[in-house]
Amino acid sequence: MTDTPTATDGDLDVFALASRLSDGHVADNVEILNQLAPQDAAAVLVLLPVDTSVEILDKPELNFGPEIVEALPRRTATVLLAGMSADMAADIVQQLEEPVRNELMQGLDAATRTTIEGLLAYPENTAGAMMTTEFVSVPATWTVERTLQHIRQVERTRETVYAIYVLDAFTRRLVGAVSLRRLVAGAPLARISDLARSPITTSPLTDREDVARLITRHDLLAVPVVDKAGHVLGIVTVDDIIDAIIEENTEDAQKFGGMAATDEPYLQVGLPGMIRKRGGWLCVLFLGEMLTASAMQHFEGELEKAIVLTLFIPLIMSSGGNSGSQATSLLIRALALREVRLGDWWRVALRELPTGLILGAILGAIGVVRVVVWQKLGIFDYGEHWVLVAVTVAAALIGVVTFGSVAGSMLPFILQRAGFDPASASAPFVATLVDVTGLMIYFSVALLILSGTLL
Amino acid sequence: MTDTPTATDGDLDVFALASRLSDGHVADNVEILNQLAPQDAAAVLVLLPVDTSVEILDKPELNFGPEIVEALPRRTATVLLAGMSADMAADIVQQLEEPVRNELMQGLDAATRTTIEGLLAYPENTAGAMMTTEFVSVPATWTVERTLQHIRQVERTRETVYAIYVLDAFTRRLVGAVSLRRLVAGAPLARISDLARSPITTSPLTDREDVARLITRHDLLAVPVVDKAGHVLGIVTVDDIIDAIIEENTEDAQKFGGMAATDEPYLQVGLPGMIRKRGGWLCVLFLGEMLTASAMQHFEGELEKAIVLTLFIPLIMSSGGNSGSQATSLLIRALALREVRLGDWWRVALRELPTGLILGAILGAIGVVRVVVWQKLGIFDYGEHWVLVAVTVAAALIGVVTFGSVAGSMLPFILQRAGFDPASASAPFVATLVDVTGLMIYFSVALLILSGTLL
Repeated sequence: MTDTPTATDGDLDVFALASRLSDGHVADNVEILNQLAPQDAAAVLVLLPVDTSVEILDKPELNFGPEIVEALPRRTATVLLAGMSADMAADIVQQLEEPVRNELMQGLDAATRTTIEGLLAYPENTAGAMMTTEFVSVPATWTVERTLQHIRQVERTRETVYAIYVLDAFTRRLVGAVSLRRLVAGAPLARISDLARSPITTSPLTDREDVARLITRHDLLAVPVVDKAGHVLGIVTVDDIIDAIIEENTEDAQKFGGMAATDEPYLQVGLPGMIRKRGGWLCVLFLGEMLTASAMQHFEGELEKAIVLTLFIPLIMSSGGNSGSQATSLLIRALALREVRLGDWWRVALRELPTGLILGAILGAIGVVRVVVWQKLGIFDYGEHWVLVAVTVAAALIGVVTFGSVAGSMLPFILQRAGFDPASASAPFVATLVDVTGLMIYFSVALLILSGTLL
Repeated sequence: MTDTPTATDGDLDVFALASRLSDGHVADNVEILNQLAPQDAAAVLVLLPVDTSVEILDKPELNFGPEIVEALPRRTATVLLAGMSADMAADIVQQLEEPVRNELMQGLDAATRTTIEGLLAYPENTAGAMMTTEFVSVPATWTVERTLQHIRQVERTRETVYAIYVLDAFTRRLVGAVSLRRLVAGAPLARISDLARSPITTSPLTDREDVARLITRHDLLAVPVVDKAGHVLGIVTVDDIIDAIIEENTEDAQKFGGMAATDEPYLQVGLPGMIRKRGGWLCVLFLGEMLTASAMQHFEGELEKAIVLTLFIPLIMSSGGNSGSQATSLLIRALALREVRLGDWWRVALRELPTGLILGAILGAIGVVRVVVWQKLGIFDYGEHWVLVAVTVAAALIGVVTFGSVAGSMLPFILQRAGFDPASASAPFVATLVDVTGLMIYFSVALLILSGTLL
């Protein structure tokens, strides 16, 4: 069971815990520290070997990194930050409040400080903000043997050594990449530049979603981030990308559910935060849905004459919303995975139109069966014009489900075209859109079919 | 623009295309072949060097692998299958129809055939079905130098050499794992068993989601799959896991949208397939939503007396559905990421209760403002009891939104407890559940408040 860490029990034996952690797997250690109040976690970290503490702070799964660093003695904090991978250290520094942030930055050695400041300059969720500067690069003139020697020396201070970047000996521009497996398999005296392949690179301002796509597409373990002149600024590694994909998917799922994305685990979002994240969209949707009340007020006369029509309002509206939600979720994913491009919108519309018509006809048939059975079995009396009522319901269902499918599938395209994330299209948003229109379709169909009889 | 490949233009110059592909990046080659009809893709593959063709067939992004293999001359097909990584070859063989499947299996060498048959025996989406058998293992008695020599020899035939598995020299049970980076940094004459760490392993029947969690949690490049006796059956690599995570997320997103998950890209699902995937759930939801009609039939007398109440039905129902959809999407992700466990359900319920009450009160306040403003400005007349109508709407909103939040958050727990995937809880399903109950809440509140006046 997860516990929200507030103040931990005063009797906590930090020494016993520290000795337990120094033997544990880092992922387990992170889970244990996530259960503690940040001050207690800091008290444990102080007692651990520096390597173990650094390894723990380097894990993105650690929930209260900044709070823990803040609770550490300043001297320990700077030692740990300097030992951490630069991207994770920058992440933590970014979340610290002043004056702690400034005090810690001043305590760091000049090289680490400059690196962290450089990383902090890039916007969130870009390759620049995600990258680490601890990678291996060697001049193109080196041999395989010399490169392996170099790797042996620097191995402990690099996040990954599985990709080695080959730089022009004079301009220090990136000219190739060699995987460690090719290097190990290579002849010791071969020139590194002969083993290198032309590198797949990204720029520091590339969105993390695009970096993820690049790494997945080419099955890379890391991708170098290069500036316009071709100098390597850092690398983004595959484990950072998995974390980014999972975070991105969580955000998309929450947005599709109709709320602002939360950055924190569910149990750690406070009540005011939860209300903010959910209340905003809920109010917007509520205001939109108010149009249904307006539409119904407009048709009040018809409603009074034919109360039987109101019985089917929720049924018809929700069917439109459901088919819209299906189409939207399909197209959000198809666009995200690049299975479908913006220019394919008409192809999609031409597929959704028959799909919607057929689905609507199926539901319409079920609706007719319901009215006929209820009428014939005497469960409910839909009035003397019950046949026309059944026809109205069926026709409205075909119209509403078709509209739902087409509108739901086009919404992600419209959002992308307008420069928004297609994943901002949520199920409740589509449902609201289709509800209002669905009501208009239903009443129009009713007027057409029942005019002169019931209306 | 993506093109659905049917029959390609007869003038296709396969020779020109083959020469272009032999210089290209494999990911680009896959994209090009995805545009061709399978027979044409096969015609191109025949002309490519075996290595290049194998590399292409090994990519999970290739859409028509089985169709292409089927269109190849049998001899070429067996050569390519034998060259492929065993997990991908098994994937393709599994999708082949008889008699082709049998013919190809008979054409394979005995070792490859046995390996593929072994992989095919594991259920879909398990570690066993995903794993590859091409990994590096060495006896614990070997030195670093000898291990590196071995890697140099087998490097080309192994999917990854970044994790080396150390086996007991006699029992051949797994006793440790060494990363290539530690091996490279190690002293040449050190015993490999001195460098090895205790391995993190999984079993062949473990679900791919759990394997993904293990690899993410420990930042692994591969995880060994071991049987009960401790023998390594194969390994699951990080790139297979990324593909699995993306596929899993697509399935979850589609299920949350209220449909059965599709295995194929959007534009490649035919109309009948699309109707099947979407029609089933749409019909189930429609039947569930029919209860709203029954509920309204039950309250027909009240509706006739107070037609003004019908005006707010869509507004109130959709607010409940929206808050339910938010809560469900939040909890599906929280459960999937293990932020929340099954036993935490009461913690969640205790958070959703106040959240729902506050959100409902906010919407209720907006609803009251709407009625008051419309009434006072003379836009619409809600009748002499308009104040009571406003109170009814507000009270119903509080009740419905609270019910939506609590029910929506509990649904994923109930599904998981009952042994289903919590991600089967869809936005339309929650909306339907909340619609029916929401209507009952609304009418009950109306009876309570308006009895004696309007009702």
